[in-house]
Amino acid sequence: MALSEFALIHRLRVRWAEADPVGVVFNGHYPAYIHVAFTEYLRALDLPNAFAQQENGQVLFVRRSTIDYLASARFDDLLDIGFRCARLGRSSLEFVQEIYCGERLLVQGHLLNVYTDLALGKGIAVPDDWRSKILAFELTPPAP
Amino acid sequence: MALSEFALIHRLRVRWAEADPVGVVFNGHYPAYIHVAFTEYLRALDLPNAFAQQENGQVLFVRRSTIDYLASARFDDLLDIGFRCARLGRSSLEFVQEIYCGERLLVQGHLLNVYTDLALGKGIAVPDDWRSKILAFELTPPAP
Amino acid sequence: MALSEFALIHRLRVRWAEADPVGVVFNGHYPAYIHVAFTEYLRALDLPNAFAQQENGQVLFVRRSTIDYLASARFDDLLDIGFRCARLGRSSLEFVQEIYCGERLLVQGHLLNVYTDLALGKGIAVPDDWRSKILAFELTPPAP
Amino acid sequence: MALSEFALIHRLRVRWAEADPVGVVFNGHYPAYIHVAFTEYLRALDLPNAFAQQENGQVLFVRRSTIDYLASARFDDLLDIGFRCARLGRSSLEFVQEIYCGERLLVQGHLLNVYTDLALGKGIAVPDDWRSKILAFELTPPAP
Repeated sequence: MALSEFALIHRLRVRWAEADPVGVVFNGHYPAYIHVAFTEYLRALDLPNAFAQQENGQVLFVRRSTIDYLASARFDDLLDIGFRCARLGRSSLEFVQEIYCGERLLVQGHLLNVYTDLALGKGIAVPDDWRSKILAFELTPPAP
Repeated sequence: MALSEFALIHRLRVRWAEADPVGVVFNGHYPAYIHVAFTEYLRALDLPNAFAQQENGQVLFVRRSTIDYLASARFDDLLDIGFRCARLGRSSLEFVQEIYCGERLLVQGHLLNVYTDLALGKGIAVPDDWRSKILAFELTPPAP
Repeated sequence: MALSEFALIHRLRVRWAEADPVGVVFNGHYPAYIHVAFTEYLRALDLPNAFAQQENGQVLFVRRSTIDYLASARFDDLLDIGFRCARLGRSSLEFVQEIYCGERLLVQGHLLNVYTDLALGKGIAVPDDWRSKILAFELTPPAP
Repeated sequence: MALSEFALIHRLRVRWAEADPVGVVFNGHYPAYIHVAFTEYLRALDLPNAFAQQENGQVLFVRRSTIDYLASARFDDLLDIGFRCARLGRSSLEFVQEIYCGERLLVQGHLLNVYTDLALGKGIAVPDDWRSKILAFELTPPAP
């Protein structure tokens, strides 16, 4: 992929507190970066964010996170995070991320989420408005 | 002061993610260390922790935090955090901290808290059981 | 003060990972926010940032940090951080910060830094270019 | 698996700053927890930690991290992190983790590392002392 395939790109700058004694971003900070991009993705689609989901009793539960580390970012680097929905299943959604510093691809991420009803304590069908907003937003249709 | 003047000493080890590109603990991590010691202080006195306080509707609101940085800690250092109540006012409490790495004093901290009722939205008198437990625990009586 | 008295204002958005179980930003995250504004302050003045200082062997050592907490920020809030130099001494510099969410003042911060030569292991005179750039940038001249 | 299959188990307590507005540990903190257990694993085997590796010019580069989230941890929970080497290849090593709160399995993690020479900028054979120490330590021999 390339950033041009992402309808949502979020830029952020690496903080001092996020770089480790070797001078590079500690790998444990990438999930927080990815969550920031996730929040912006939900905002761009006018979908409820993590807090509002909880209020509604229906949340995107993160079931699995995979991150491939290809190269390192450093303090003060500007990172571009592409975030897209790659699969829109009945109750599960998969999102992929790519993080670039300029032209360099640093990180590829993948999130498997289950659309979960908190009262029922299990996955339920992704609501129609989520489905239609995601389909309308993505440049490439997510796999079913 | 010295660690011997603290009835509560909590030991923790510096994590990789907490050291910065210069190799020392980023100063912004000390408030989290101090909060860890605060939690252990409340546990040692059998007083409600931050979560239970909120459930009860009466919280120790942090009004002011002051930290003096004297020397640096590094990745994997073992730190000893002394935590004590230095002043027990009508609705305010002051806590002081000293953080050592072996014999070296690294950090001196001071917290001013207000015992706050969330429904009233203002400070109220520190309850008697807080008062008696703190007075019974401290090696040196807090100032009034 | 008010934001209008700051020549440097940096806006950032509260991340999910920075809000605590009570729903507000854990107070220990404010030093990291303030450091982000500090980095932007140094960039605006074309002065070396934390990493470059270390490379040069001359660093702004944080000697004391004081933070007053007046009100709370929540997940997804947009914060405006004003950062200015309040005192420009021979070898010490004091910076003050105010953090707003809209019109609400949440936090007032104060940093005492010592301009330190790492090889000498002690404070030295603030260099002339730092002095002139700060004086040219600030809306109100720092105290001597 | 079960904790009894791990020769290295590290216990830590969830900090206030690590729990999110929903009251559970933000998933982005688990990589830092896993790194803490990794550090203890290296200490138990008398192998160089992240900092010493860098000094030696030979590091365990994290190539891929996968985390399965099964259940949530909360503020003040005590977590037991099992950490073991599951595969010891020529230049790559795979480590698996399980994180429990009491009897409940919360998280399963997997790390793929490449033993990397920084000067050469590529993976090299895992040294014999790493190999022999890991084989002597593990309860079940890692796959080749």
